[in-house]
Amino acid sequence: MQVFQIEGDWGFENLKLSTRPEPVAGRGQVLVAMRMAALNARDLIVPARGYGRATGELPLIPVSDGVGEVVATGEGVTRVAVGDRVCPTYFQNWVSGEPSSTRFSSALGGPLDGVMTELMCLDQNGVVKVPSYLSDAEAATLPCAALTAWSAIATYGQTRAGEQVLIQGTGGVALFALAFAKLHGAHVTVISSSDEKLETVRAMGADATINYREIPDWARASREITRENGGFDKIIELGGEATFPLSLRAIRPGGTISMIGVLSGLKLEASLGPIVARQIRLQGVTVGHRDGFEAMLRAMSQHEVKPVLGDRFAFKDLKAAMAHLREGDSLGKTLIEFGK
Amino acid sequence: MQVFQIEGDWGFENLKLSTRPEPVAGRGQVLVAMRMAALNARDLIVPARGYGRATGELPLIPVSDGVGEVVATGEGVTRVAVGDRVCPTYFQNWVSGEPSSTRFSSALGGPLDGVMTELMCLDQNGVVKVPSYLSDAEAATLPCAALTAWSAIATYGQTRAGEQVLIQGTGGVALFALAFAKLHGAHVTVISSSDEKLETVRAMGADATINYREIPDWARASREITRENGGFDKIIELGGEATFPLSLRAIRPGGTISMIGVLSGLKLEASLGPIVARQIRLQGVTVGHRDGFEAMLRAMSQHEVKPVLGDRFAFKDLKAAMAHLREGDSLGKTLIEFGK
Amino acid sequence: MQVFQIEGDWGFENLKLSTRPEPVAGRGQVLVAMRMAALNARDLIVPARGYGRATGELPLIPVSDGVGEVVATGEGVTRVAVGDRVCPTYFQNWVSGEPSSTRFSSALGGPLDGVMTELMCLDQNGVVKVPSYLSDAEAATLPCAALTAWSAIATYGQTRAGEQVLIQGTGGVALFALAFAKLHGAHVTVISSSDEKLETVRAMGADATINYREIPDWARASREITRENGGFDKIIELGGEATFPLSLRAIRPGGTISMIGVLSGLKLEASLGPIVARQIRLQGVTVGHRDGFEAMLRAMSQHEVKPVLGDRFAFKDLKAAMAHLREGDSLGKTLIEFGK
Amino acid sequence: MQVFQIEGDWGFENLKLSTRPEPVAGRGQVLVAMRMAALNARDLIVPARGYGRATGELPLIPVSDGVGEVVATGEGVTRVAVGDRVCPTYFQNWVSGEPSSTRFSSALGGPLDGVMTELMCLDQNGVVKVPSYLSDAEAATLPCAALTAWSAIATYGQTRAGEQVLIQGTGGVALFALAFAKLHGAHVTVISSSDEKLETVRAMGADATINYREIPDWARASREITRENGGFDKIIELGGEATFPLSLRAIRPGGTISMIGVLSGLKLEASLGPIVARQIRLQGVTVGHRDGFEAMLRAMSQHEVKPVLGDRFAFKDLKAAMAHLREGDSLGKTLIEFGK
Repeated sequence: MQVFQIEGDWGFENLKLSTRPEPVAGRGQVLVAMRMAALNARDLIVPARGYGRATGELPLIPVSDGVGEVVATGEGVTRVAVGDRVCPTYFQNWVSGEPSSTRFSSALGGPLDGVMTELMCLDQNGVVKVPSYLSDAEAATLPCAALTAWSAIATYGQTRAGEQVLIQGTGGVALFALAFAKLHGAHVTVISSSDEKLETVRAMGADATINYREIPDWARASREITRENGGFDKIIELGGEATFPLSLRAIRPGGTISMIGVLSGLKLEASLGPIVARQIRLQGVTVGHRDGFEAMLRAMSQHEVKPVLGDRFAFKDLKAAMAHLREGDSLGKTLIEFGK
Repeated sequence: MQVFQIEGDWGFENLKLSTRPEPVAGRGQVLVAMRMAALNARDLIVPARGYGRATGELPLIPVSDGVGEVVATGEGVTRVAVGDRVCPTYFQNWVSGEPSSTRFSSALGGPLDGVMTELMCLDQNGVVKVPSYLSDAEAATLPCAALTAWSAIATYGQTRAGEQVLIQGTGGVALFALAFAKLHGAHVTVISSSDEKLETVRAMGADATINYREIPDWARASREITRENGGFDKIIELGGEATFPLSLRAIRPGGTISMIGVLSGLKLEASLGPIVARQIRLQGVTVGHRDGFEAMLRAMSQHEVKPVLGDRFAFKDLKAAMAHLREGDSLGKTLIEFGK
Repeated sequence: MQVFQIEGDWGFENLKLSTRPEPVAGRGQVLVAMRMAALNARDLIVPARGYGRATGELPLIPVSDGVGEVVATGEGVTRVAVGDRVCPTYFQNWVSGEPSSTRFSSALGGPLDGVMTELMCLDQNGVVKVPSYLSDAEAATLPCAALTAWSAIATYGQTRAGEQVLIQGTGGVALFALAFAKLHGAHVTVISSSDEKLETVRAMGADATINYREIPDWARASREITRENGGFDKIIELGGEATFPLSLRAIRPGGTISMIGVLSGLKLEASLGPIVARQIRLQGVTVGHRDGFEAMLRAMSQHEVKPVLGDRFAFKDLKAAMAHLREGDSLGKTLIEFGK
Repeated sequence: MQVFQIEGDWGFENLKLSTRPEPVAGRGQVLVAMRMAALNARDLIVPARGYGRATGELPLIPVSDGVGEVVATGEGVTRVAVGDRVCPTYFQNWVSGEPSSTRFSSALGGPLDGVMTELMCLDQNGVVKVPSYLSDAEAATLPCAALTAWSAIATYGQTRAGEQVLIQGTGGVALFALAFAKLHGAHVTVISSSDEKLETVRAMGADATINYREIPDWARASREITRENGGFDKIIELGGEATFPLSLRAIRPGGTISMIGVLSGLKLEASLGPIVARQIRLQGVTVGHRDGFEAMLRAMSQHEVKPVLGDRFAFKDLKAAMAHLREGDSLGKTLIEFGK
């Protein structure tokens, strides 16, 4: 079968179309014919071995998110049946509960082989059925980006109606966080550098928006928005280095900043003072567990939440798709179509 | 000033229009000119001393829910100012945290004097400002019925988008619970004996309805509704004796039944088996604390949630209003207008 | 290999020493040579098909709790290795998170085959390694009784130092609950019908004891013990029908009653009034998940908590062991030794 | 009456023995004759207006922690009576629930007047009764240091038996955190620069110790201690700038770092990477609420936990006491005796 894999040595230049023998579903395993994949920022970091030892070993099939159809099941499989459409879970071993090294080391697309393969052989515990209202392209976007947003808003954030949430940017996690915060009745403010994108998120339900290119001190600008509340109850921190110091100022006493993204840099440079004195909680969020995935799907199904889709590329054009994602100009998830 | 009070002896016949000297706001207190009151089932039980020793002592001013305007403030008052429109909190001493005997014994309308008085003198910690989008009549309905529903759905229930909630009947708490469950993105099923009322709740957002007069075994009938979920995640138990055994069958393993009302009787007669074997949680809910009240008001304001109002009666017609409530045929809160 | 199984028809008379072919560990599975089993009240109910359809199908190997040694591992097994001493988890599919029908239907000793077999073939996710400080006999007692107590005290009860806990009786769950509540710094009261047993639990750390044969109204008697607290923070409800109405009186407002056992009967007959008015929580507890098991083992290891052992019987004398348990006179878990 | 106050201008040189008229207890207030005060690091920052606007206004009576006897009560006081021994709560308005600006701005010893006054007039809601087993000196140490430790270990940390906790240093909060973590059955590691102090904490129950002067990379050194756990479950972060990067390495995936102290500096300089990738929680902790104080006292009373006391100074020698604290060489709380 055809696969894309990093082989020989690390580096984008070593990401190649290749072949592997077809796997066979053993006891408790399912064979999934992949139909569609979706890219995340993470997928650009893996080929360069950007997570060090945690990136895995070569050869490595990249990309974490995708959807396919169960085409065979091994002995003892009860969770799914042939013909079911499923997403692999990002963490193959994290069913529920707290994270652990073992659970974290079971990530698809590095250190474990990812979805850029015509056939995936997975433990039945590592897949979830996807609802029929979603197209293949929509379903492919869920395992990382959507679940990260759900974990931040619902599982850890326990967002309530009437709370005020700030979301940074309009990337994959940001747009899902907007949708999920609105589902829970929250008041949502989105910041972005583009008026056009802010117009789009307003149409998606954002209650307030700030263009941080025009108003760099968005923390001050948000004071009027959160006047009665003394700051945001929750901040979905996606910018990292550049945004974190402002997040510390914009959060209310006792509020929670979900630490998810580091788009502008990894360096955490700030004063410890406000974290202590205003009793702020910083909660790192890394995707989430399967129970969260299934809870998210129930919520999405009921409200027929639709992921925002971007451009599509053929399987063989993975590197073009990655280049497109790296430019990062457009809204919506970049997709890879299998069989094209 | 004019008051209604139970005097001389307990019993409805001793509920009388009377007078008391006007109170003066001491340090930390506020004087509130009442404008509107709203009745709860509880108000029909108090005159007959239905809560025993916990009902309080005579003379007692009844009725728990109302709204008024701050007309004077004592020394050191900072929470509110003259001119603010406020609701007294049902539990005057329960600001936040866990309940206690002390907190529970500070209930308005028995054991403490209630709102059927032209002027109330309250600790500043025992009032909350109400948002301007609400009319006096709407605001008057909040302290017991709305907060009980909020506590069950949000504070204790932590209802998430996509969860399935069953609400019993169309009384005051039930209609607020419907509104709040919908705010949090839940799927809501309402049961009632009246098709007309079920039509109304559908218009208010209920996703599914069952007429339990036509389908007495609503637990079985709900199986189709909750098929994918294995039962309701949350049940707002308002019927008591008649509904509880069915609630035990309709809840999913690990689900929560909020124990609030006992309209059909107080007797708890059921098998312990399913509570243990299906790991069900029963959570008694008694109104709630002031922090919950303020969180609820933020949610209500954002979404401009409007309470359902019923018939109105003049202050002097309290007993007619109570008789009207006892009949219980109509939807919406029964109101008492001051100054009429 | 030798097994005990209920065969032909339900009923104790059909519980027989028999043989089955030796299983082989498939992918992801481990083969465990059982060394010791321990009996629970549940094991007396299964042979008579006391859980109805949930009891499983014939032939059925009974008994839930035991310990053995891994003697073979299938492909892909990473959680344990040959030579490890392990306990099977009671619920084979409940790794963590909330319960569900699927998770509840994976119980060993009915509906799934239990531990009365020389060799068990289990999914690697269905075993936990046991610490070396425990003897085989001690380790065998953990999967049901100890984990149920841990779930009630720690996972759901979140017992804190200084809280007051009431424990009913001196059975398997009760003695573990006593040990775990003391580990968390709680004040523990135990009730029993035997002064001798009460003396034993005092030696194990119980802070207060009541002989309910001498003082049938132990709820009233406990008032002095909980005077400053207004009742117990937590009650480990093991008696059921006879004790529950007293538990409702002895719990503090806002307290939690863990519903575990029904020794005196299944009938729940009480007034709903106090549950609502005192905002009591009833929390059904059914054993617990694997994450809880492993957290419990860390706590036990650190403090070298030793289970209380009772009489031992040879494998072939299972029925005598069950008869001994039914008499219920003695303290400590009844044990079955393999290879004898 | 005699007071110590910062008057005229900010600065230690303006901290002076002075007099104020005796206050009178109004409605809901109590008059407390102070007996003993205890110093915290915070008290050294206030005179220099180190918290900016949040420090309060002049003249200001400093010092947050103390104990005294109720000598008069105003109308409507029910929580305490004349003769009761009480501690003022650090946050006068924070009874329970989440923090807020209003609650945070009610701190004694800046912005509100502190305990260095012969008589304090406080709202009845701002005092807690102290158990009789504690001496005045012991009770005086509780409001800030002990409650901060309790909030970190119990209220927010929800520390369980068997968890591994790292505590930095041997200051006031650290020693209370050690005591409270042990009460909850945790395994505790303490780091310090002094072998002598480490010997003392071992005697107090610490399970492991590291001298960070000898072993500067205590994060690496702790790997052996936490080998089975993958890191500490909880870290009580008291060092700030110098310790935080090591804490990030020593915490387990999903663990919680309680951000409390900044002894070595305020600068937060670290990589965001591990917070996100290992899903770490940082939880700022600022003392805590009254409900927490009372829960802590129940736990302390049951186990007769004794605070570690340091040197004592007369009321008039406040500045000498502060100088002594600044040197920071000795273990135990620095005390101020009234009436001497």
